[in-house]
Amino acid sequence: MKSNLLQKISNNDFTVGIIGLGYVGLPLAVSFAEKKVMTIGFDKSLSKVEKVNSGINYIGDVSDQELSEAVGNKYFKATTDFSRISECDAILICVPTPLDQFKKPNMEFIETACREIGQNMKKGTFICLESTTYPTTTEDFMLPILERESGLKEGIDFWLAYSPERVDPGNKQFGTRNTPKVLGAMSDDGLVLGKAIYGYAIDQIHPVSSPKVAEMVKILENTYRLINISLINEMALLCGKMNIDIWEVIDAAKTKPYGFQAFYPGPGIGGHCIPLDPFYLEHIAKKFNFDLSMIHTAGHIDMMMPHRMTLKIASALNRQQKAINGSKILFLGVAYKPDINDERESPALKIIDEVAQKGGIIHYHDPYIPTIATTRGLHFNSAPLTSELLQQSDCVVITTSHSVFDIDDILKNAKLIVDLRNAVKIASDKVYKL
Amino acid sequence: MKSNLLQKISNNDFTVGIIGLGYVGLPLAVSFAEKKVMTIGFDKSLSKVEKVNSGINYIGDVSDQELSEAVGNKYFKATTDFSRISECDAILICVPTPLDQFKKPNMEFIETACREIGQNMKKGTFICLESTTYPTTTEDFMLPILERESGLKEGIDFWLAYSPERVDPGNKQFGTRNTPKVLGAMSDDGLVLGKAIYGYAIDQIHPVSSPKVAEMVKILENTYRLINISLINEMALLCGKMNIDIWEVIDAAKTKPYGFQAFYPGPGIGGHCIPLDPFYLEHIAKKFNFDLSMIHTAGHIDMMMPHRMTLKIASALNRQQKAINGSKILFLGVAYKPDINDERESPALKIIDEVAQKGGIIHYHDPYIPTIATTRGLHFNSAPLTSELLQQSDCVVITTSHSVFDIDDILKNAKLIVDLRNAVKIASDKVYKL
Repeated sequence: MKSNLLQKISNNDFTVGIIGLGYVGLPLAVSFAEKKVMTIGFDKSLSKVEKVNSGINYIGDVSDQELSEAVGNKYFKATTDFSRISECDAILICVPTPLDQFKKPNMEFIETACREIGQNMKKGTFICLESTTYPTTTEDFMLPILERESGLKEGIDFWLAYSPERVDPGNKQFGTRNTPKVLGAMSDDGLVLGKAIYGYAIDQIHPVSSPKVAEMVKILENTYRLINISLINEMALLCGKMNIDIWEVIDAAKTKPYGFQAFYPGPGIGGHCIPLDPFYLEHIAKKFNFDLSMIHTAGHIDMMMPHRMTLKIASALNRQQKAINGSKILFLGVAYKPDINDERESPALKIIDEVAQKGGIIHYHDPYIPTIATTRGLHFNSAPLTSELLQQSDCVVITTSHSVFDIDDILKNAKLIVDLRNAVKIASDKVYKL
Repeated sequence: MKSNLLQKISNNDFTVGIIGLGYVGLPLAVSFAEKKVMTIGFDKSLSKVEKVNSGINYIGDVSDQELSEAVGNKYFKATTDFSRISECDAILICVPTPLDQFKKPNMEFIETACREIGQNMKKGTFICLESTTYPTTTEDFMLPILERESGLKEGIDFWLAYSPERVDPGNKQFGTRNTPKVLGAMSDDGLVLGKAIYGYAIDQIHPVSSPKVAEMVKILENTYRLINISLINEMALLCGKMNIDIWEVIDAAKTKPYGFQAFYPGPGIGGHCIPLDPFYLEHIAKKFNFDLSMIHTAGHIDMMMPHRMTLKIASALNRQQKAINGSKILFLGVAYKPDINDERESPALKIIDEVAQKGGIIHYHDPYIPTIATTRGLHFNSAPLTSELLQQSDCVVITTSHSVFDIDDILKNAKLIVDLRNAVKIASDKVYKL
């Protein structure tokens, strides 16, 4: 069974199925198709599937040309029909793993994917999860569903592995192909197969001894980021009280040629990794009677950041004898990081929510995000960034530092700027920095 | 006054005084003397002063040849006579800033240095503190003492600055000269003078806008390290419970080509920077009604690490139906990091203390540290590392991974190894890893 599949892989006579055509799955599918691997993309969303099949790209990290080539030359097709899993020799799962409102893992997407796979897969299929999740998910959560639904046996009839995605939206240097990939399988055979399969899409595979090691790797990477962003955010708040410019401190610390990596403060963490992944670990740690105090503390800092930023806006307005209530407040940038069109978990939305609740009259401008809905369900449309809008606002808050923003123009026209991203490098009385 | 001193500096017709001839002061003095700057080293310790003047080196980061050349060619002399401060055009303060038992800053060395300087300095002296301390120390703590004791005025009669030392003992790549130096002065004149003076000893100076920014820079650098070591130590404890090899996880995470810096777990933090510096910041933050929760949590993890390591030793012995009480326990390495002869704040000492208290029969071997005294005042001598000693020990604990240790030999002869440093890379039943 294994040598049969291995032969098919080495002849490039095999089919890869990718479940979930989002930020992770779509670039991965394109990467396989580029190497002329037959690739089927599965997604519940008919609109995504139709877009893909028409060659219409909706992900920043994939170029329109890459997608249209992959689709045009027939190596990549998308479908909503999960019964076609039976056509696949390898299934790579790239579904979301969100947290619920209480920061508990929502495993339903993985569970559904496993059911669909178990009910449809043929014997001799390699299955690999890419979604970030708590360690033990592959072996303790997925395996029982797959074996139950399929009646097949892992290690004999199919192989199960875990390989965390490392997608960094907007990263121009490192994409799917040239970012090394960690892979842990339940058996040696699974590892051999996984390496052979991923070898088509990814330059360098780093094997580890088990799925749970690979699961922990991804969480460590993003927990490292959470912890360090939280530290620098807390330091920034203290520096604010001590009248020390945190940005100047970081620039100087960066001159240390070893043992330091710079992180920058901001209005809070955002996106679909850092605000989520560490809490997957916190969840499973409880089962082992273990309290992850660093993650807990970091989470505490991050939860309060948007509120603290609202207080900064109030303090800045207070200098001009104004209150939030009744003031026109313009937010520049609502994406969770610069130059992308993704506002998931963005702190800007939380700050807007709170400022609106306190009676602020909200406008926002984001060149990449035409409309937003806040957590409380408020809806806004991006306003054109005109000199009049800047002049008429009591306070301009820079929440995301998109590189297209004309800082000189903003500085010229705004009455008051709360700069949460060190976008305005020039010292000015009307700039209130984080 | 300023242009007079600047002229002397540019002609190399000036004298530098360095207060404190330890890990920071001695290499700095040698670095100045190498460039033929007249350098006087001040220290209260007659024995250190006599050693220096005899060309006897006692610091790992200075070579014997460098010191004997500096002393031999008369550019560097040491003295216990602080009245000779009056001969100096620049005074660089490299005294210890320890914490007391309650983790509160002990400022007495800085205070004494400032008194001696204030009472002895001539007009037109540049003064710079290098010791790590809480932000505001230079301006709020040192300045009043210096002005009161001297009757002189900063910015007119003398100049005050802060420039944190960045010495990393044992670092072969980065030493005093080629590690960029951050410098913040109270006045523009002070900054110009400081840059000119330090230019003789250090390749690259990074100026910042004030002493307190420079003070914060150093604390940020070491707080970053404390936080990340604490995180990885906590992760290691959880991985132990989940039967995941943390070292394998880190090795795999390191393959991420951006946004990750590897830290390694161990029995606890040690040395004279990381266990101290962040708590200087925690101290001053209180004055600003600010709770540094990340440092607090990290401190909590680090305080419990030696105790947790004692429990690891007990667990390992328990596998062999033995208790700590009455067992012979051999500790390998007591330095706080590999290949150095410094056991200050070393977690090994704390573990030894606790294991001894629980009735363990203690032996230790460290090729660089012939005797130790634990916090509770127990004294031990390093035992020769023989096959017999290894064989006769119920448990061998690797507390510091000196590169001279013959791991194969230890593995061959020991009955049981508790490896707190991932020194034994081979899997073995008798090895109990952190």
